[in-house]
Amino acid sequence: MHDVRKITVMENIHDENDHIAYHINEDLSNKGIFAINIIGAPGIGKTTVIKNLIANLDGLKPYVIEGDIESDIDTRSLRALGIRTFQINTFGACHLDAPLVHNAIQNIEFDEQGILFIENVGNLVCPAEFSIGEHVKLLICSVTEGGDKPYKYPLAFEKADIVILNKVDLSPYLDFDEDFFMKGLRALNKTAPVVKVSAKTGEGFKEAAYWISGRAERASTTR
Amino acid sequence: MHDVRKITVMENIHDENDHIAYHINEDLSNKGIFAINIIGAPGIGKTTVIKNLIANLDGLKPYVIEGDIESDIDTRSLRALGIRTFQINTFGACHLDAPLVHNAIQNIEFDEQGILFIENVGNLVCPAEFSIGEHVKLLICSVTEGGDKPYKYPLAFEKADIVILNKVDLSPYLDFDEDFFMKGLRALNKTAPVVKVSAKTGEGFKEAAYWISGRAERASTTR
Repeated sequence: MHDVRKITVMENIHDENDHIAYHINEDLSNKGIFAINIIGAPGIGKTTVIKNLIANLDGLKPYVIEGDIESDIDTRSLRALGIRTFQINTFGACHLDAPLVHNAIQNIEFDEQGILFIENVGNLVCPAEFSIGEHVKLLICSVTEGGDKPYKYPLAFEKADIVILNKVDLSPYLDFDEDFFMKGLRALNKTAPVVKVSAKTGEGFKEAAYWISGRAERASTTR
Repeated sequence: MHDVRKITVMENIHDENDHIAYHINEDLSNKGIFAINIIGAPGIGKTTVIKNLIANLDGLKPYVIEGDIESDIDTRSLRALGIRTFQINTFGACHLDAPLVHNAIQNIEFDEQGILFIENVGNLVCPAEFSIGEHVKLLICSVTEGGDKPYKYPLAFEKADIVILNKVDLSPYLDFDEDFFMKGLRALNKTAPVVKVSAKTGEGFKEAAYWISGRAERASTTR
């Protein structure tokens, strides 16, 4: 970020991005679609969390956009469950941006109101910088990462509307310092709920899905 | 990467970066310093691996550059062990680049030949794109991430000179598909050795440190 040309170009790109993001959000809201930007490091369990949230949505129709640098592994596994899923491959770019998502939503048939999960590229840094038209940002962490992540990657924690702490079934085998984690999170973000989940035991997903349904309902009634 | 201005600016930045990286490498080689660019996702155990490698270096003097967006948690823990460590904070930038590392090495007193560990920002995407003057790239993965990472983040795997597979003590509690992981890795990279390690048991670090010592010796004798 020390290069003046880069800063200027990036500022322009951010402005254009936010303009497109605003229109995506408006378009989705008009269609009754509540969009969730799913952010987390590689291998943190983003797709698994999405599948478990969908299983607990109680009839709300799910849609998924999968963001990956390459591959469509997750898209195939979601489609195998009958979930309408659109693949974005960024081929090198380290995050989704609003133009990529704008193109994707033009290609998804939203035949019912529902929830759109947008799985960002696995990266705890850059995705936090770009709005992609979402209604809320959902940050996924894991007890396997260690408790120091809020201190090292503050923007993602600052911007999260909800934090999911994944893989808690592994806690007995780890030295995850939850107090240190929570202290770091709360220094950046006073309000985001933290929900502990495990795909192994199913723990926590009902609570997280309930939060999503509530926010989606509030978004639709306040329009 | 769809923005033409961004591509042009990025190409120029890459050229300048590589020019500076070339000079860093030359400078370090002249000083008898073998530099390792440590790449891996957040929470994958980069600092812990560095500490364990240093403990197995058999008298080769270690130096560390810590790259973090914010915080100096790891630098403090390394200095507490008596390891000469320099902190780079990128304040938002998602990877180290050659100018940042060039500045750092001007501020480190290399009073003996040895090994310089440069811990990149926790990110499996962008660090792989930028040379920072290293002699080798060491990629750290973990069984907690799942076996699909080579397919989703190919560049880091393609460019790695050695791959360390961390946290293997947790394997009994996970469904890590090692065959799938190795197949994906070998499609991109035929030669990088894969060393399984665990900071809990100490397994594997002697072997990885031996590889490093060997490469450092070869680098010094072929000059």
